[in-house]
Amino acid sequence: MSRRATVVGVGLIGGSIGLALRELGWHVSGVDPDGERCSRGLELGALDAVGWDPDAEVTFVATPVGLVAGLVAEALDASPGGFVTDVASVKAAVVEAVDDPRFVGGHPMAGSELDGVEGADASMFRGANWVLTPGGATADAAFTRVRSIVRSLGAEVVTLSPKRHDALVALVSHVPHLTAASLVGLAARRSEEHSAVLRLAAGGFRDMTRVAAGHPGIWLDICAENRAAITEALDDLIGALGEVRREVAETDGDRLLHRLESARTARVSLPTGAPPPSELLEVRVPVLDRKGEIASIAALATELDVNIYDLEIAHSAEGDRGVVVLIVDAPLADRLTEGLEGLDYRPTSRPLTQG
Amino acid sequence: MSRRATVVGVGLIGGSIGLALRELGWHVSGVDPDGERCSRGLELGALDAVGWDPDAEVTFVATPVGLVAGLVAEALDASPGGFVTDVASVKAAVVEAVDDPRFVGGHPMAGSELDGVEGADASMFRGANWVLTPGGATADAAFTRVRSIVRSLGAEVVTLSPKRHDALVALVSHVPHLTAASLVGLAARRSEEHSAVLRLAAGGFRDMTRVAAGHPGIWLDICAENRAAITEALDDLIGALGEVRREVAETDGDRLLHRLESARTARVSLPTGAPPPSELLEVRVPVLDRKGEIASIAALATELDVNIYDLEIAHSAEGDRGVVVLIVDAPLADRLTEGLEGLDYRPTSRPLTQG
Repeated sequence: MSRRATVVGVGLIGGSIGLALRELGWHVSGVDPDGERCSRGLELGALDAVGWDPDAEVTFVATPVGLVAGLVAEALDASPGGFVTDVASVKAAVVEAVDDPRFVGGHPMAGSELDGVEGADASMFRGANWVLTPGGATADAAFTRVRSIVRSLGAEVVTLSPKRHDALVALVSHVPHLTAASLVGLAARRSEEHSAVLRLAAGGFRDMTRVAAGHPGIWLDICAENRAAITEALDDLIGALGEVRREVAETDGDRLLHRLESARTARVSLPTGAPPPSELLEVRVPVLDRKGEIASIAALATELDVNIYDLEIAHSAEGDRGVVVLIVDAPLADRLTEGLEGLDYRPTSRPLTQG
Repeated sequence: MSRRATVVGVGLIGGSIGLALRELGWHVSGVDPDGERCSRGLELGALDAVGWDPDAEVTFVATPVGLVAGLVAEALDASPGGFVTDVASVKAAVVEAVDDPRFVGGHPMAGSELDGVEGADASMFRGANWVLTPGGATADAAFTRVRSIVRSLGAEVVTLSPKRHDALVALVSHVPHLTAASLVGLAARRSEEHSAVLRLAAGGFRDMTRVAAGHPGIWLDICAENRAAITEALDDLIGALGEVRREVAETDGDRLLHRLESARTARVSLPTGAPPPSELLEVRVPVLDRKGEIASIAALATELDVNIYDLEIAHSAEGDRGVVVLIVDAPLADRLTEGLEGLDYRPTSRPLTQG
């Protein structure tokens, strides 16, 4: 018997999830308000069937962010024994609206310049980061099952609290997008006076503003749902540009050089995955198999600014005990273990050993 | 006999000019304070010889912008019968400092992620825009000769006044670069608290910030030389981001959508060359063969915000008269001809015909 999944929203991401799951032998059902898209999904091999599947082990809600909370509730009803996750770019509002142990929020950091199910690709998630954002209500079983399915698609899982996720994507995705649109807007306005401006837009400008060529529709939802984090990150950027302006106006070469050199160092060392194992520690935390244990540990790590590179639960063979295994930056492991001890956990830590 | 050129500064751009000229059969001499680079230039086939060439028909000064004015003066002395041009990214200061009929400022809008003469490429300028910025002192003969040599390298020539050039590159190159560095700087600062931020930096962020991986050294010169235009463009960007912030904070979806849609339209229609011939007009202006005739016509066009897509001089077979032929946007041609009439020129205009 095949494992069964439902995909809600048969577009670029939903279609890619369908293709990838079917390659792994899953049976995939599709739901979309636009029946045309389901038909294309069937034709393109992203779906086996159309409609809700009551036996779905997992449902991926892959619609614009404004529709997610309602469709997650529908999905929870449609498959009473299944887990549900979503792929929206903003998480706090959705996780707050859906208070259910069978739901865990998610956000694959992947995409393409293509559009719709026509652009779907089974390999889209290979090597991509896929954020999961367990909330207070999320059952450990929901988190671990969704995590293992996401990993089977080839993605690396990053665990973050919903609020932390939203603050970080505001900084590395939402505000850069709005900035690209602003730069293009200024150039376009100037080009009404002087059309040469766009001819002078060489490779660097094209690279920087490529994201502004995307469909604007989804951005209204994102800006509405992530308003607080986006305005904060915009304030940070406006502040930084004000400092740059001062440095240029005063020909403050030392500061400017320092700024550009720091940026260069950061840019060339953008990680493509986790740090090398030598810089990581494994923290093991014995827990009772209780609802929300993972979320409370993840929330503590967030509060302490300790990033969790990886997280899994090892269940004991008997009884209701297990061990949560966290992989964290070595220099921050002590901070985490002390915090955990403050909450009466009994963590141990050890270097990451290879085999 | 080969035509002869000198390249001053044997780096990425100077080396590429040397390779491209030599492919066309020129004899190319190289000058560089760093003798190593001349040796590499010889080895890589970018140069025929090392040292100043008194018989050079043209000298390209391809050094960091701070050194250009001094080296242009040296080049004018070194080849008393030759023309001199440069490739610096800022033009007004250089053109002001060099007051000589044999000099015309230039700026090829081309480059590569590679560095130094090792990255030089004979085809670097094929299809690229190459701005020429004749000043008041520039002789027509200097402009037309340099223009035809630049075109022989495969570049499209755009003629702008030095100040206009500087304002436009501030907007499409200098400020985008400083913005990319600022975005990376904010993400890097946040990553000290929370290392996940850089893991979430997916494709769009990488594209947007790629330019920040370049060597910061040249940017100090650029910021110093183009201070006024850069601070003005930074003010414009800070203002635009402030408007975006308000629209996000107030969930002003209509304005935000309009902004993003306009940006998308502008981005997807970034021109790769001049408009189609049907949108262009040819304006013919009879002139006396006098020094500075081209510069004064180009300056008028700039003042009237009429872009010159192409410009050449047809000399009469006898006497001291010629015709300056300008290619401009059709809707703006009247504005230019009226302005020219105001200066006692007798321009005529006609549609661009193909053969």
